[in-house]
Parts: sequence; structure tokens; C-alpha cells
Amino acid sequence: MLNTPDDLLISAADETLIRRKLTLVALGKAPADRVLRVGRLLDVHSRLWLKDQEIVIFGRRIAYVGPAGSWPGEAAERVHEPGLSAVPGFGEAHKHIESSHLTPEWEAALVLPHGTTWTCEASHEFSNVAGPQTLDFWLEPRRRGSPLKIFPLPGSAVPPTAYEWGGGHFGHDEQQSFMAASLMVAGLDEVMDWPAVWNPDNPSHERLWGMIEATFAARGVVEGHAAGIRDLPSISAFAAAGLASDHEAWTAEEVLDKLRAGLFMELRPHSLPDMVKGLMAAGLSDWSQFAIVTDDRSASDTLRLGATNHNVRLAIAAGLAPEIAIQMVTINPARHMRLTPWVGSIAPGRYADIVLLSDVPGVVVEKVWADGRPVAENGRYLPEVPAIDWPDWATRTVNIKRKMTAEDFAIPAAPGRASMQAAILRPFHWADDFITMELPVKEGLVARDPDRNVTKFAIVDRFSGEGRTSKMFWLGTGPRTPDTALACSMGHDKHNIWVVGSSDAAMAEAVNALTAIQGGWALVREGKLVATVRYEIAGLMTKRPPEALDAEMKALYAEGEKIEWMFEPTFSPRWFPGFPERLAFATLTCAPWRWVLVAPSPLAPEGFVNVATGETHKVVW
Amino acid sequence: MLNTPDDLLISAADETLIRRKLTLVALGKAPADRVLRVGRLLDVHSRLWLKDQEIVIFGRRIAYVGPAGSWPGEAAERVHEPGLSAVPGFGEAHKHIESSHLTPEWEAALVLPHGTTWTCEASHEFSNVAGPQTLDFWLEPRRRGSPLKIFPLPGSAVPPTAYEWGGGHFGHDEQQSFMAASLMVAGLDEVMDWPAVWNPDNPSHERLWGMIEATFAARGVVEGHAAGIRDLPSISAFAAAGLASDHEAWTAEEVLDKLRAGLFMELRPHSLPDMVKGLMAAGLSDWSQFAIVTDDRSASDTLRLGATNHNVRLAIAAGLAPEIAIQMVTINPARHMRLTPWVGSIAPGRYADIVLLSDVPGVVVEKVWADGRPVAENGRYLPEVPAIDWPDWATRTVNIKRKMTAEDFAIPAAPGRASMQAAILRPFHWADDFITMELPVKEGLVARDPDRNVTKFAIVDRFSGEGRTSKMFWLGTGPRTPDTALACSMGHDKHNIWVVGSSDAAMAEAVNALTAIQGGWALVREGKLVATVRYEIAGLMTKRPPEALDAEMKALYAEGEKIEWMFEPTFSPRWFPGFPERLAFATLTCAPWRWVLVAPSPLAPEGFVNVATGETHKVVW
Repeated sequence: MLNTPDDLLISAADETLIRRKLTLVALGKAPADRVLRVGRLLDVHSRLWLKDQEIVIFGRRIAYVGPAGSWPGEAAERVHEPGLSAVPGFGEAHKHIESSHLTPEWEAALVLPHGTTWTCEASHEFSNVAGPQTLDFWLEPRRRGSPLKIFPLPGSAVPPTAYEWGGGHFGHDEQQSFMAASLMVAGLDEVMDWPAVWNPDNPSHERLWGMIEATFAARGVVEGHAAGIRDLPSISAFAAAGLASDHEAWTAEEVLDKLRAGLFMELRPHSLPDMVKGLMAAGLSDWSQFAIVTDDRSASDTLRLGATNHNVRLAIAAGLAPEIAIQMVTINPARHMRLTPWVGSIAPGRYADIVLLSDVPGVVVEKVWADGRPVAENGRYLPEVPAIDWPDWATRTVNIKRKMTAEDFAIPAAPGRASMQAAILRPFHWADDFITMELPVKEGLVARDPDRNVTKFAIVDRFSGEGRTSKMFWLGTGPRTPDTALACSMGHDKHNIWVVGSSDAAMAEAVNALTAIQGGWALVREGKLVATVRYEIAGLMTKRPPEALDAEMKALYAEGEKIEWMFEPTFSPRWFPGFPERLAFATLTCAPWRWVLVAPSPLAPEGFVNVATGETHKVVW
Repeated sequence: MLNTPDDLLISAADETLIRRKLTLVALGKAPADRVLRVGRLLDVHSRLWLKDQEIVIFGRRIAYVGPAGSWPGEAAERVHEPGLSAVPGFGEAHKHIESSHLTPEWEAALVLPHGTTWTCEASHEFSNVAGPQTLDFWLEPRRRGSPLKIFPLPGSAVPPTAYEWGGGHFGHDEQQSFMAASLMVAGLDEVMDWPAVWNPDNPSHERLWGMIEATFAARGVVEGHAAGIRDLPSISAFAAAGLASDHEAWTAEEVLDKLRAGLFMELRPHSLPDMVKGLMAAGLSDWSQFAIVTDDRSASDTLRLGATNHNVRLAIAAGLAPEIAIQMVTINPARHMRLTPWVGSIAPGRYADIVLLSDVPGVVVEKVWADGRPVAENGRYLPEVPAIDWPDWATRTVNIKRKMTAEDFAIPAAPGRASMQAAILRPFHWADDFITMELPVKEGLVARDPDRNVTKFAIVDRFSGEGRTSKMFWLGTGPRTPDTALACSMGHDKHNIWVVGSSDAAMAEAVNALTAIQGGWALVREGKLVATVRYEIAGLMTKRPPEALDAEMKALYAEGEKIEWMFEPTFSPRWFPGFPERLAFATLTCAPWRWVLVAPSPLAPEGFVNVATGETHKVVW
């Protein structure tokens, strides 16, 4: 009998060894490890329920599925769950685990009890911090036995635009080597910079097409991100470019227009009920080109709401048949991602990843099996989380080799001026032009104007060691409370440090605090550091249980509530009053963004740049 | 503006050049070549009809699809078909073009008027004759501009079993090089020898797993052929092996069992109506894991019945919604074969391959566009067929460097015996054991016994030059008319020459006639060559119009009708009285075959071997 490999990371050579063995188990010629007999089983290929089935398991895989008692072989162990309904392990077609702020081994502990057993990781967050190590990072927990299958798709947004740098730079050759390195790599995630895709003059144009070419060459999937694209010509251009999916639609009409262009539609929970209802009203009865995806969700929100199971519940509540909603997180995304040999259904050859539901329309996850054994029961994660001693490339990523001072954040006025014109942004300001305001000059520096909702916002480079800083005035966000600042090392998608504050000294203090803890959040109130949250891995994640992180976040929120925060509405439907947590997404530079602040870069020395046109501008004049 | 490549054979580098250009056309920033406006269009992603749409074409591709008048650009030419319904070009997920007996450029002329614009070519017929040239052969017509997109899947059955040889030998390294050679290669076709897949002692075991490994490594699709597998353990073993599809099911029950194991089900016309009705009766409403495929059909039958359009008609007549049936020959197989960027839907980025129907439920193909221009009208093929001067590796494949004589086919008796025991086969004899009969000895040779329906059958090697011959007695087939023989160079799947005859001299004469014409059919009646059909390409195909071939076949049939043919029923539902055309399939050696006759080989020196066990036996004793 052949020795079977550990079957953790998929490789073609291992596949043939594992599958040869599975054939013998299926035929009853070799013993199985375990038989799981279930009350009923959803065959996602036919969308039909099958009663009283047995799932025969060898190693981490399924060898046989059939009516109870039909398999001719011997098993070491038999488990019977007559009252539960078995459905395939849920999969995420588009997810940034970094947004959980947990390392992948702790993400597993968080989401497996909710039924998620596989994740297509859109890796540009980590990749922008430590690009060369991206596969090492995403695959290491699995290598250590973590039951969550993570399929990394190296990010096209590394860097997000040609105006950003540091941490990682991916082009044709990098993508070619990723695709060659492991069958776990499913393709290229998520081509966001569509203006660069169809503008030959955009400095990212060649880099993006190089990555697309390398992905096509290796028969991988090129994922898209069609945010802000609603007109038919742009949708057609997006599809014609070979970008195969979108997860940024908000309305049923937008979904239909994109679906018709051949995009695989990945629906996010934000407006899922509206989209589902609208699509049903439009007469849609074929949902095979759809997935439901999370994209970004914090560990705190997952603890509160659930993971993919929450998304499925939303779709069912909106009127979708539970079986169709389950296909949208199992076979459909597996097929789209070309992962059907491994995940997406309860069928021979696939990983034995099975969700046992006590209530199907309610998506009540009673037990979860993964890799052929129970991994969760009533929300409790059963395996030991591997203790990974992450190397320096993961733990030493806030590289600022000096103390920041108030001067770093000062914006000097021109000599003799009592006021100056200032270029102003506000969070999620997607207009073609920036805002202009006249701001007072105090002691030679251009000053904030809290009465008009204006404070200061800065980006501090955390890659060069020098702490190069861009700064400008922002509207409608940040603390009104004096000597107060909020800093964070998660600033999508380049993940430099952003800091917003009512004094330059508080801003410096907050950034210095972040450097000390190597990333996370730092809140300075009235000159005093009052809360930190540690994202000690890549400045984006922590290697602690979700509950520990959640407690720290709650402490941060509690201190945040003691602060008066500026607010005004903006274009984003997800921009709220209070603690400005979503500023971490207000540093995005992908379309539909235009004017943004990035760390000082060769193409944008002051950091203030229109990423759609390449135009730069002074922040005061 | 970038120069665009000829866009005939898909490559990653060309894709990026072509698609960059398409984005500009979609946006109206570059002119289109042609706009086709249609009365309505089937969006196979949503399965919804869209009224009055325009399809904007650049080069061979679609740049834009939307409501008439919505595209902002300029086009050189506009065509309006207000009365026709546009559906995507039909695709074959599993087809042996060799069974048309036309070279690929003539296959294009035959099937394009019926709406077939792309074909996954299961290439083991040609590959068994000229394996090293398989990609050259299948890709050359496209390289010369033929609008039919042929996606070759090199055959796993090269050779079909370890007991056959000559022409081609594919293993891991060959498959690795095929997958690396071209993105047109979609994977590995069709793993038929499942007994070898799960029997480590079978001499083909390692070769097959090597090919599977190379296919997985390149993210290709491994196609299956689960003929004769009906029991659940074998179905599970088949699926567990990673074989992703089956096209050999005959009943709805068998289809469901295989579908549930995760196999993509490719339904053939033979029992399509029964399967469709049975599946609908079983409550199936999700057909996304289904295709309709032809597998084998002669040019004569295609002229009479149609191509994929005929298959679709059968499904609709059985009760399937036309839109679902059309999905089963467009988006479904494209998705399964990982070819959605190029074929399967009328959407941006895909080839502009469009079938215009005047009657959708009747699948009446009025016009066909391919590569962005009209290629057929009312059944007439419009383009010029490229005149290809096929090299010797295609045209000199019947390699017998001597005249065959009656002695080559004689079966000597043991000295002094008046009769001998003979091992007997009949066509499609799938039993574990061969038949045994006592046959008379005449002039020192074991003799035929036409009174008991026994004649002689032989296989003549056409690869070594030596004309090595295996021969034995067969039951229930062949001519009763004296001095008559039928020979053919198409003998699935190794495609040596098979010959059946009522005299050894007639058999020799028929084989010599085949050598002279380099393959095809040769019929000798009462000592005289009365008909030949030329398959001068690989001994399997002709480079002539289908009508010319059909005329030759009809002449062969006419002469065949003048002969008295033995017959008795056998296991195959497709074995009929009269001219024994299907003997070309009675030389198959894949499962569920057991005892077969192959050309003399190292493991079966007399050619009579049980391919399931490796056992050999004397043909007389």
C-alpha cells in the first residue's frame, strides 16, 4: 500500500498518491478511517436532498458517499447524526482575512464553528506589507495542520497604484512564480485599478497586464473588483479585459448588467437582501453564476453576526431557497475558482468538510467536520490552534527608526501669510476635484479649523525606516477634543500608518505608540495614550483568540466614546458618525477614488495625488 | 495603438494584447469592425432573453453587448437581424472529430452551418496513430484561419492498454509538454481504463496516474469515461480518482448516481430522451452540471441529422426548456472545461461566435457567425476551406512494407488433428470468459464454420512496417458470402487494421488495398475489390468535403448490401444486422472489455488477451 502524504497543501504529486488510495477505500478494498452517517445530505450538484446517507472518510478526504449501509468496506469508527442535515463546508470566494485582524490559524478558530471551511484569500493587504512572503504566510497555518483551506490569490493591488511603494511589488514575474509555486494559488485577486487596465498611459498599466498574462498562462482565475462601474461600456470593457468577477455591485440592476457581461457575481451582505429580491423580481431562476461573499468583516462582527452562515441567512430571509443559497457558498464558488476537485461538495475525492445543520432555513450550524473529523460543536472550536512563531517579516513590519515629533505633522505657511488656501478631502470623497478652503495661519503654520469641521490627516510610511510623512487637512472626520489623535497601521490598501488628530503632538504620540507595539490602533486623548489594540502581525492581524482581540477593540471603542468626533455625510453608504473606524478604508486608492493622500513617493512627493489622472497638487498655497 | 495578434490560437501573451484593444472598443474609444444587431439574445448567464441587442465586434472577438444604440463608438459595418434569435456558438465537450472521418478544416465546414463553433477534441484516435504530432494536427487548421475552435485534450488511451503499441505513447512527460505547449489544450481526455486506475498491478497504472498528475499540475481538466460503471463503489472510486466527468451513462438512474458523485454529466444522444425525461421525473431542476455531447458521429450522419443542434433538439423534444438545453451546449461545458474567457456565451472578451435561430424550440439554424463574421447561411458554409498539404506523418500512416498473403491469416492446426478447440469472440462480448467451440481442420488449417456463424477476424499492425498479424475466429459477424472480406484502418482505439473475411486470400487482398490507399475501408467480394473509402489522413480521416466522403460511403454500403452478413445479437445496444460498420468499435479495449484481439505485442504475443486481468490464451488448441 502506498504511503499517503499529509494532504495539507495541495500538490499534483500528492494528489495522485492520495487519490489512488481513495479509490481502494471507495471500493471497500482498503479500510476507512471513519464513516459519518447523516439524516440527510444536500447534493449540491443536483440541488436535491438525499436521505440517510453515509460519508466514508479516509485521511482528510471523502472516499465514498451513498445510502447508509451501501458501502462494502470496513471503518475504524462510525458516527451517526440522524437528526442533522449535512451540507458542504462553506467557502468564501472573496475574503480578506486581514480584515478579521486575526492570523489565519486564528481565523480558522473563528470561522470554522460557523461552517466556513475554505477561503479564497484576496491577499493584497498582507502582500502590501510583506509581498515576498505572501505564500509563506497564508500557507503556513495549513502546513501546521489548521483545517481551514486557504487558497491565496496574490493581489493585483501590490502596490495599489503607481503612487505607492514599500512592502511588496508584484508584476508578471512574481505572479508567474506564485502560480508555479502551489496549486493552492487559484489565480489573481482582485483587479481593482480598472482605470489603469484600460488607460495605456497609466503607470500601472503594464504591471497589471503582466499579472493578468501570468495568470492566464497558468490557467488561473482573474478576479475583478468593478466598484463604481455602472455604465454598460465600462462593464463591457471590464469583462473584455478578462476580469472574471465582481463583488462590488449594490443593486439588482447593476448585478444584472454585470452578470450579462459574463461576470461571476459575488454578492456581499451590505445590500444582499435588496439584490436578491430585485433579481427574483426580474425573473432570475438560474443562480449558478453567483456566490455570496464577505470581503471584509472584523472578528468582533463575526463573533456577533457569524461568518458565511450569516450571509446565507440574509439571502434566505430575502426569499431565496435555502438550497440555492447554500449552492452560492459551495459548488458555485468552487466551480468558478476551479477548485471543485477539492471543495464545494460532499463527494468522493473532496476534502471531508461537512457542515451539520439542525435547522436548514435558519442555517443553524450544530457541528462542523473538516479534514474528516469534527472541528466544531455548538460554536466551540475543537482543535488546538497551532502556536506559530511568526518570523520577523511578519512581526517587525512597522519600520520607523526614529521618534516622530509634532514637527513631522506641521504644515508651514508661506512667510507673512495670515491665511492660506488648503486642499481638503473628506472620507470617501469620490469627486473629480478636491475641496478648497481658506485656513488660518497660527505661529507660521496653517491651522486646523474645528469650527468648520476641519482637522488634520496624515500618512506615515512604515516601510523605509524614515517615517516619511504626508499630511493635509481633512473635513468631517477626526477628533474635536483637543490634543487627541487616532492612529492605525491598517490603511487600505497600502497599509501605511494613517493618523488623524486635533494636535500635531498628539498625532506624533499616537504614531510612536503604534511603532512600539508594531501595529494596530493607538488612541491619544488630551495628550495621553488611552488605548491600544495590537495587530502585531504585519500591523494588520494579531495571533490571539478572537475574544481577546474583541475585548481590546471594545476597550478602544469605550475610550473613543469619550471623544467628540467630527462628522459629515459623504458618498459612502458605510460612513457613520462616532468613532471613525472606517477611516481605515478611507485611505483606499483604487477606483472610484480620485484625489487621495499617500505616503510621499517619487510620483507624488507631497503624497497628494489624483490616482485617476496622475495629477499632483500642493496641500496649501 | 497596439498591434493585435492574429487571434487564432489562444496564448496568454496574445490575450493581453487583444483584450487591451477590446477595452478601448468597448468604451467607444476605438472603432469596431462590425456591429451585429439582433431581435433578441439569450444571456446564458442568467438564462434570460434580452430584446433588441447589439453585439460589437473587433477582430474575432466581442467587445461590447447591450441594448441597440447603447454603444458609444463607431463601427465600419452594421448588420441587423431583427427577426432572428442569437444564442452562443454551440460547443462539444466531448467529441472525436476522427469519427466524422474528416480532417478538422473539413469538420469545420460540416458542423459550423449547424451552429457548432467549438469542440473539445478527445484526441486519442489520431494520437494513437501519430502521437507526437497530435497538437500540430489539431491546431494547424485553426492556424490557417479555420473558424472552428478546437481544444485538443490529449488522450489518456495512448495506447489504450498496455497490450497495444505503435503510433503514440503518452505518459506524464508528454502530457506535461502538451499542457505547457498551448492554452488550447484544456486537459486530459478521457480516462477510460478505470480498471487500471485502481489496480496498482495493471501495467498502465503508473502511466495513467502520471498523465493525471501532469494535468492537475497545469490546472487542466481530467475527463472521464465511466462506461459500464453502475455500482456506487465504482462510481465513488471513479470520482475519487479525480476523473471529473462521464459521457457513458444510459439511464436517468445512472446519471443521478454519477452526478451525485460530483461528475459533470455529458449526455449523449443515444438515450438522451429517456435520460432527460427520467431526470425531470426525479425532480431535477438544476442542470448546471450537464452538457450534451456527440462523442462519435460520422459525416454521413451529420449531413442527415445535424450536429450539436440535433442533440439539442432531442433534449427539447424530451421536455427540456430550450434555454436550458442551449446552456447545456454553451455555458455549462465552457465552465466545466475552464474555457469561459473564450467561448460559451455572447459576452465581451469571448470569440464572436453566434448562432442565429429563426425558431428556437426547433433549433433552426438560419445563420452562423464565427470569429466575428458570417460563416454559414441556410446550411451553406461560406469561408474557403484552407488547403492543407498535410505532411507524411499524417498521410503515410499505413506502414506495411510487404504484400500480405493468405498465409498471414491462416491458423494452423496441430499435426494430425481433425478438429481443434478454438477461443471465440463475438462483437461487444463483455463477458469474463471467451466462448469455446470445436472447429474443423481442413488441409492442416483450422477452418471457419459459416453454418455456426463463425468466421475469421484479424488485426494487422500498421505501425511497424512488418504487418504483424493476430487472428482468431469470431462469431456472429462477417461475410457468409465466399471469398469476401471487409477491412478498415479505423479500429478503435489503437487503429490498427481489422479485417473480417470468409477466406484468408480475400482478407489479404482487402488489407493490401487499404495499404495502397493509406487507410479507409476496403471491401472484397468474391475475390474482387469492389469498394474502397479513402481515409488518407492517419487512416482515419479524409481531407475532402463531407459530401464526397458520404458518396464514397454510400457506394461502400451499396456493395455491402450485395453480401450476406452473419449476425447475432450481443451486449451492445448499438450492434445491428447488415453491413458490420460498427466492427470499428468492436476492437475497443477499454473497460468494460475483457477478452480482446490486439496486434501481437510483447505482453500478448498472439494478440489474444484479457485486458482486465492481463491473462493471455491460445486462439486454438
